[in-house]
Amino acid sequence: MRVLVTGGAGFVGSHLVDILVENGNSVVVYDNLSSGKPHFLQHHLDSGNAVEIVKADLLDLDTLKENMVGIDIVFHLAANPDIRLGTEVTDTDLKQGTITTYNVLEAMRVSGTKKIAFASSSVVYGEASVMPTPEDYGPLFPISLYGASKLASEGLISAWVGTFDMQAWIFRFANVVGNRGTHGVIFDFVHKLKNDPTRLEVLGDGNQAKSYIEVRDCVRSMYHLVSTTDDALNYYNLGSGDVCSVRRIAEIVVEESGLPAVSIEYTGGSRGWAGDVPKASLAVERLNATGFESAYDSEGAIRHTAKALIEEIGLHDER
Amino acid sequence: MRVLVTGGAGFVGSHLVDILVENGNSVVVYDNLSSGKPHFLQHHLDSGNAVEIVKADLLDLDTLKENMVGIDIVFHLAANPDIRLGTEVTDTDLKQGTITTYNVLEAMRVSGTKKIAFASSSVVYGEASVMPTPEDYGPLFPISLYGASKLASEGLISAWVGTFDMQAWIFRFANVVGNRGTHGVIFDFVHKLKNDPTRLEVLGDGNQAKSYIEVRDCVRSMYHLVSTTDDALNYYNLGSGDVCSVRRIAEIVVEESGLPAVSIEYTGGSRGWAGDVPKASLAVERLNATGFESAYDSEGAIRHTAKALIEEIGLHDER
Repeated sequence: MRVLVTGGAGFVGSHLVDILVENGNSVVVYDNLSSGKPHFLQHHLDSGNAVEIVKADLLDLDTLKENMVGIDIVFHLAANPDIRLGTEVTDTDLKQGTITTYNVLEAMRVSGTKKIAFASSSVVYGEASVMPTPEDYGPLFPISLYGASKLASEGLISAWVGTFDMQAWIFRFANVVGNRGTHGVIFDFVHKLKNDPTRLEVLGDGNQAKSYIEVRDCVRSMYHLVSTTDDALNYYNLGSGDVCSVRRIAEIVVEESGLPAVSIEYTGGSRGWAGDVPKASLAVERLNATGFESAYDSEGAIRHTAKALIEEIGLHDER
Repeated sequence: MRVLVTGGAGFVGSHLVDILVENGNSVVVYDNLSSGKPHFLQHHLDSGNAVEIVKADLLDLDTLKENMVGIDIVFHLAANPDIRLGTEVTDTDLKQGTITTYNVLEAMRVSGTKKIAFASSSVVYGEASVMPTPEDYGPLFPISLYGASKLASEGLISAWVGTFDMQAWIFRFANVVGNRGTHGVIFDFVHKLKNDPTRLEVLGDGNQAKSYIEVRDCVRSMYHLVSTTDDALNYYNLGSGDVCSVRRIAEIVVEESGLPAVSIEYTGGSRGWAGDVPKASLAVERLNATGFESAYDSEGAIRHTAKALIEEIGLHDER
């Protein structure tokens, strides 16, 4: 298949490209490289794999339409990666989340591309009253502007399925962690330790607890579901079924750092920032029922990622 | 209170202005008059009531911000009134539904206006598997582009509540009918009979069946709920608890027309157009539990409306 991956040079996107290439697909990476990094894909370019990189913005609808010609399926992963930024510049997620999804769907409609897989998020559930939260949970009242853009994108996709006869897979991600990470709590902690190896400041009281999924598990499950499910609109939580607290993450990062005397300090409060969901746990029975098996649980994913990011970011070089 | 009503010169909006004035509020009507009609508000202007009309577009954020100063609560009703148009010009609802809601919220954030009541719709439920559909139903997969914009707007509002400490009321409307109607099935039927008093073409097989609410019941319930509920985010279905089929609507309009021999003809198919939800029934127990009582059930609302629109549109003058 000829596959277009938006955000394909980013953290999750580049791992997805790996899976797609391993399975014999040809891939067009559409990425503005605002947070994506071409060197995440360098191994494909070096090996002569069927990977083409288009450096362009999804807000440029004409360029997007040009690149949509002949595409069989779109994996739409591009988004503003920094949830907190949405609070400061309030149209960030509207533009980079909602309008970009509209543009992807419109380019697909014009070019006749019928299949889309979308990286949604557990944040669409807001502060859910049921945990672990199943896919059919309602109401959907996200509390972050990022969450609003994910819900808006889901609605656009379901409308395109209902109106223009498309087929879609909506994946609601737990927190995705792993190597090549460019943001998120583990990434932040490693950078903080790099700057000051004696103390680690944690936003909130450390009791925030969420589901995590290792990035390779995440992209494997996406590819598995697109290959094995076939409803007009397929929707799945992607997670590992357990949760890990921010306190535990801090401890794990400190352990893996090998630093001898780190003081972990909490800023206090139940959430890290306005719009942060303090507790999130995803039901993954529907995913597991398809025969998919994760390699890592949440804590395993975090330890694996702490090792990988300490290696990538080079904490040990600073000591 | 000083109240801003977007779409306040429209069908539902003008009835809401009536209720607001009756209860002693001063009202700023913000309307681009694309489908709203100033004569719906003429009685207030003639009586010297505290109603001011600002003819401006919600996409003009600067003008919106200017008019938001000193507003205590916004009733956000403006939207593209024609669900079918969204299928032809696919960014209609994105612009007139989603981006306008973002603008309203952003203007509120800047001016310090803390309360918003929003006209959402039963279309956010898509083709629900549970009927009557309760407010906590999930998943929310609308099938029309209009529905996508209502869901996106709900998500933006919940994000603003969660992030910027606002208070909101989300009202999911059944089909609203009544005098001053400018669109919708009864309006269409009356115009068709005006053009040809011998036959009435009905889109679909006539078995589409939905909840209807009379417009005065609708705006009374909105005002009642804003006055009596006080959560950070309040959300209610507004409907009358029963349903009425399109076939029955056609029969009622023909009966009320007094025309002697109308042939009702069905185009066939389970839905009127792509994106039409053929069956929609709203659970209204939460509304009723607040002590609100509707004047009309669905069929009563339709008969009342048929009489009113035949009078307004002037069917009898044509015979």
